[in-house]
Amino acid sequence: MQGTQPPTAQPAEASVDPSAYAPTDRTVPTRSADRASYDRELVHAILDEGYVCHLGFVRDGAPVVLPTLYGRVGERLYVHGSTGSRPLRTAGKTGPGLPVCVTVTHVDGLVLARSAFHHSVNYRSVVVHGTAHQVTDPEEKRAALDALVDHVVPGRAADSRPANTKELAATAVLRLDLAEVSAKLRTGGVNDEPEDLALPHWAGVVPVRREYGTPVADADLAPHTALPGYLAAL
Amino acid sequence: MQGTQPPTAQPAEASVDPSAYAPTDRTVPTRSADRASYDRELVHAILDEGYVCHLGFVRDGAPVVLPTLYGRVGERLYVHGSTGSRPLRTAGKTGPGLPVCVTVTHVDGLVLARSAFHHSVNYRSVVVHGTAHQVTDPEEKRAALDALVDHVVPGRAADSRPANTKELAATAVLRLDLAEVSAKLRTGGVNDEPEDLALPHWAGVVPVRREYGTPVADADLAPHTALPGYLAAL
Repeated sequence: MQGTQPPTAQPAEASVDPSAYAPTDRTVPTRSADRASYDRELVHAILDEGYVCHLGFVRDGAPVVLPTLYGRVGERLYVHGSTGSRPLRTAGKTGPGLPVCVTVTHVDGLVLARSAFHHSVNYRSVVVHGTAHQVTDPEEKRAALDALVDHVVPGRAADSRPANTKELAATAVLRLDLAEVSAKLRTGGVNDEPEDLALPHWAGVVPVRREYGTPVADADLAPHTALPGYLAAL
Repeated sequence: MQGTQPPTAQPAEASVDPSAYAPTDRTVPTRSADRASYDRELVHAILDEGYVCHLGFVRDGAPVVLPTLYGRVGERLYVHGSTGSRPLRTAGKTGPGLPVCVTVTHVDGLVLARSAFHHSVNYRSVVVHGTAHQVTDPEEKRAALDALVDHVVPGRAADSRPANTKELAATAVLRLDLAEVSAKLRTGGVNDEPEDLALPHWAGVVPVRREYGTPVADADLAPHTALPGYLAAL
């Protein structure tokens, strides 16, 4: 999501900065390279703010993109296998793993320019390339499931019944190392052409944010179960 | 994004209902098939509510998923080429086109079960499979750009300076027919195990919605330019 300026290709350079991911050929955009970042803290912050990713994989030579839940633990991303057993079956429990691309996007604002051409969106996204492997270790799977739950609502994993052995066995989780990673951001205001500034169209940015409504308790809630603080704080 | 119940594969059957898309092998999920829908009106409604899609394509045999803007015109989806020139270059101006998967997801609620295992998200998503082609006709490109802008803010295209010839030439747009399409939804409350109902953990659904903040006008706004009604109504 960037403007339609001509490509500004930049060479991929190996980074020696331990605070950043090393750019690779496929994490350096062919255009709007100035919007790309490899900063580890920034990548983590973008990932930690979300819980739904778009998981891409190749099936019969064609791309497939499915929404699914994810969680981050250090430099590992865990993706819920529940978007369909296809990627999980393809990844297998052993073997070379499944080439995937996992993308997380937050929209922060609508950028309304005077010209249709310069309309845009302020956003922050992270794209992770790599090979996903099925998590088979029960303890790693449990930690991954906790991370998924805590991404949805921070603090929730500790306030729920942990998965039992049967549930862990029925849960499919993919692990993807955060190695080939980039963030991309668009911030700021409109970029209209100078000759358009006098046009009578309103121009500016409309902030967009995720809001939560009043929690709706399950009808079968146990007596005296209060709304937990981490939900009231959402 | 569904539960981890065992796969419930169902055979793909050609639909004769003109109000629905015909299911195909790759639009019938291998699990949670009861959450799938091929209803045309539902698909259109989900698409029309959004403006950011996740575009998947294959590059050097590996999947790539990028966020980008889109718009719908009838049974055609238009995707902004600005996510990077790679898919556009691959698609070419002529030729066989680019196999893509375009996915649009809206999150409607956080489903907090008593058990970590049954945590989920209420959502509506549309997945479109097909071959994307570059739009070369200037009028079609202009209409596609208008659709993109009107997806971001309904009514905005008519209140902006239309793209000129130079801008149209610099705009890359992919067209994707809505033919192989499915929607998937999760609605409702928690699905806890009966033996977990007495647990003291709060359970229920937290509604999630997109909210807009107060529009921030560009500093160079022409004098007496009022906030348009379609923005006040957001």
